[in-house]
Amino acid sequence: MKWIKNGGVTAAKGFKACGVAAGIKANRNDMGLLVSDVPASVAGFFTSNAMAAAPVILDRERVATGKAQAVIVNAGCANACTGKGGYQDAVRMALIGAKALGISEASVLVSSTGVIGRRLPMERIAAGIGIGSMALFPKGGDAFAKAIMTTDTVDKQAAVSVMIGGKRVTVGGCCKGAGMIEPKLATMLAYLTTDAAVSPQRLSAILKGAINKSFNRVTIDGDQSTNDTVLLLANGASGAAIKTAEEVRIFSGAVEAVCKCLAQKIVKDGEGATKFVEVNIRKAASADDALKAAKAIANSPLFKTACFGGDPNWGRVICAVGYSGAKANPEKVQISFDDVCVYDKGKIADAATNAKLAGVMKQKAFSVSVVLNEGRHDDTVYTCDFSYDYVKINGDYTT
Amino acid sequence: MKWIKNGGVTAAKGFKACGVAAGIKANRNDMGLLVSDVPASVAGFFTSNAMAAAPVILDRERVATGKAQAVIVNAGCANACTGKGGYQDAVRMALIGAKALGISEASVLVSSTGVIGRRLPMERIAAGIGIGSMALFPKGGDAFAKAIMTTDTVDKQAAVSVMIGGKRVTVGGCCKGAGMIEPKLATMLAYLTTDAAVSPQRLSAILKGAINKSFNRVTIDGDQSTNDTVLLLANGASGAAIKTAEEVRIFSGAVEAVCKCLAQKIVKDGEGATKFVEVNIRKAASADDALKAAKAIANSPLFKTACFGGDPNWGRVICAVGYSGAKANPEKVQISFDDVCVYDKGKIADAATNAKLAGVMKQKAFSVSVVLNEGRHDDTVYTCDFSYDYVKINGDYTT
Repeated sequence: MKWIKNGGVTAAKGFKACGVAAGIKANRNDMGLLVSDVPASVAGFFTSNAMAAAPVILDRERVATGKAQAVIVNAGCANACTGKGGYQDAVRMALIGAKALGISEASVLVSSTGVIGRRLPMERIAAGIGIGSMALFPKGGDAFAKAIMTTDTVDKQAAVSVMIGGKRVTVGGCCKGAGMIEPKLATMLAYLTTDAAVSPQRLSAILKGAINKSFNRVTIDGDQSTNDTVLLLANGASGAAIKTAEEVRIFSGAVEAVCKCLAQKIVKDGEGATKFVEVNIRKAASADDALKAAKAIANSPLFKTACFGGDPNWGRVICAVGYSGAKANPEKVQISFDDVCVYDKGKIADAATNAKLAGVMKQKAFSVSVVLNEGRHDDTVYTCDFSYDYVKINGDYTT
Repeated sequence: MKWIKNGGVTAAKGFKACGVAAGIKANRNDMGLLVSDVPASVAGFFTSNAMAAAPVILDRERVATGKAQAVIVNAGCANACTGKGGYQDAVRMALIGAKALGISEASVLVSSTGVIGRRLPMERIAAGIGIGSMALFPKGGDAFAKAIMTTDTVDKQAAVSVMIGGKRVTVGGCCKGAGMIEPKLATMLAYLTTDAAVSPQRLSAILKGAINKSFNRVTIDGDQSTNDTVLLLANGASGAAIKTAEEVRIFSGAVEAVCKCLAQKIVKDGEGATKFVEVNIRKAASADDALKAAKAIANSPLFKTACFGGDPNWGRVICAVGYSGAKANPEKVQISFDDVCVYDKGKIADAATNAKLAGVMKQKAFSVSVVLNEGRHDDTVYTCDFSYDYVKINGDYTT
């Protein structure tokens, strides 16, 4: 597997993209178009929030057909909780796109991100699509990735290539964060493309597996968005078809690598984040227990503020494990930060160890590992710290 | 029911208390003793955290006997996750208390609050108990309430009296917050006393009912402590016995009033809190749904930071309801802040309404009410905002 420097949604053959300023947000690009040269297989996963946004509802219907050719995304307005009118706006946004691109209406998907409870400014959306349809180009992935940003401070892209059946297959993607993030059965906005030929059913299974090891294992604030969307388009332009077990294995590895890279970029750019923290749970009684314990630590405001301040307060880790609902016994638990063991089956860290721990927590990135010694199940979740800036960013988001 | 000004754990007849400096924390009182003149009925509820602290484990055993006469509390060290040695420390702390007070060992309960994963400084504990046993006095409730504070900025006390069978019965109490607070089957440190005569079984049932409407309905940060404890001692000194349904009703009302008052004081003094927010869920499909939806809103970092900044971003409320797991449909939900309706079954607030909402959110205290229109179940949870100071307080708690 080869990583492609600066690769994103147009790294794979046969895709064009662009980013344009539709005037929804002031003084910046706020709309992205991504188009495949030919109709592609599509797989998609969406938020499990009961208040799913209008574009999510529409995309769910269209992804079920297994085919798509274009994705149109706007930032600045989530088109969520906007009633029947909001759903009609999403349908119209896709229709305007289909006409401008000269493709079938059913093959156009739409996404929105931004403030909940506001209607889309449809005149600006239409104008943006008009400009965008003429601005598409084969290296437009970078512009697309930048146009869909909200509180993100950097764009988030990744791409790899693998050899399958003697042909070079590329998988690329981009995504956005950076708050209201704890994907559950789905995730935030992420777009992936590949020039492999894959059936929609197989594509969906591969994407699901990759999401469960990447986007579904990150958390910024435990708030699951109304708009979470991951789409993967496969247009076959590489000439390689994914059919045998070996081909699926190689291709799945590429999809998973891109998803993991993108998911970690979201955490590193979490709202106000200054630290990247890997939370490992080992030897849990069940897979569910491993995830519950990891999420409890990763979402604990007390743990996250301690990470921000570099406070060697490991008691907050064991406290979070204790209320997570996972089977755990203080006489069996072991806790380490990187390679510094701070708690070993009832034995607590001494002053020298706490001093070492403070050193670990001063780093930009570190891991905390909790061995439960209750069974054979492991899991890993990625999180960031909670800083003054998280409070600042979210204290005046709409104003 | 009559509220007693400045009343606390010694408002009821036959109780003495004090607060002393044992030297566990620098330059302040850090230890409290509360003693009944005679052995009292006792009821207690504790954390459901699997990592329950040593004093919680000991108190659970002793409360099961139904009788207690004294409670000894220290701040500055939680004696949690300290292994077998920590449990022996708790037993010794109670034994030292029993000897100093000349009462039976089994009738002494202990509590600790502070940093997790550190052993108690037993010499200081012993010295503090020695001084405290000589400092007890009938109006010592105020000193007791102040001695158990950690990051609390104010002490939290309440007391009421009611007439039962021609006799005046008093119920008083105090508690501490102010972080690591989302009690589930129990709560943080709270001590209640009454001079009514009540059997331990009846006392426990009454206390459980009161807790579910008070301490179990507040949240600061969603972190459930290892040390949560509520104790209620009833020594019968008023001469009134609680036996008939009518007596239970009046007495329960008094206990619930004191618990609610104390629980709300905890939220108002939440770490870094600047706002007090009442979250009401109405017409949920089940009691569980009502609580889940209320907790999701009350614990959402995005909602809490919006409250801090006074940002009229009501979309975060409907988003939290959506991921709470409660049955909810955007076409049926209605949302109001105080009396300003911002979302009505798919109809979103206009600019004028959002301006009114900003006015509501500028207040020190306000309510948000979500009507789900799915059933007949209501619930209310109290929460506070998330401020820079929460991050500051918890970024360097141990250092």
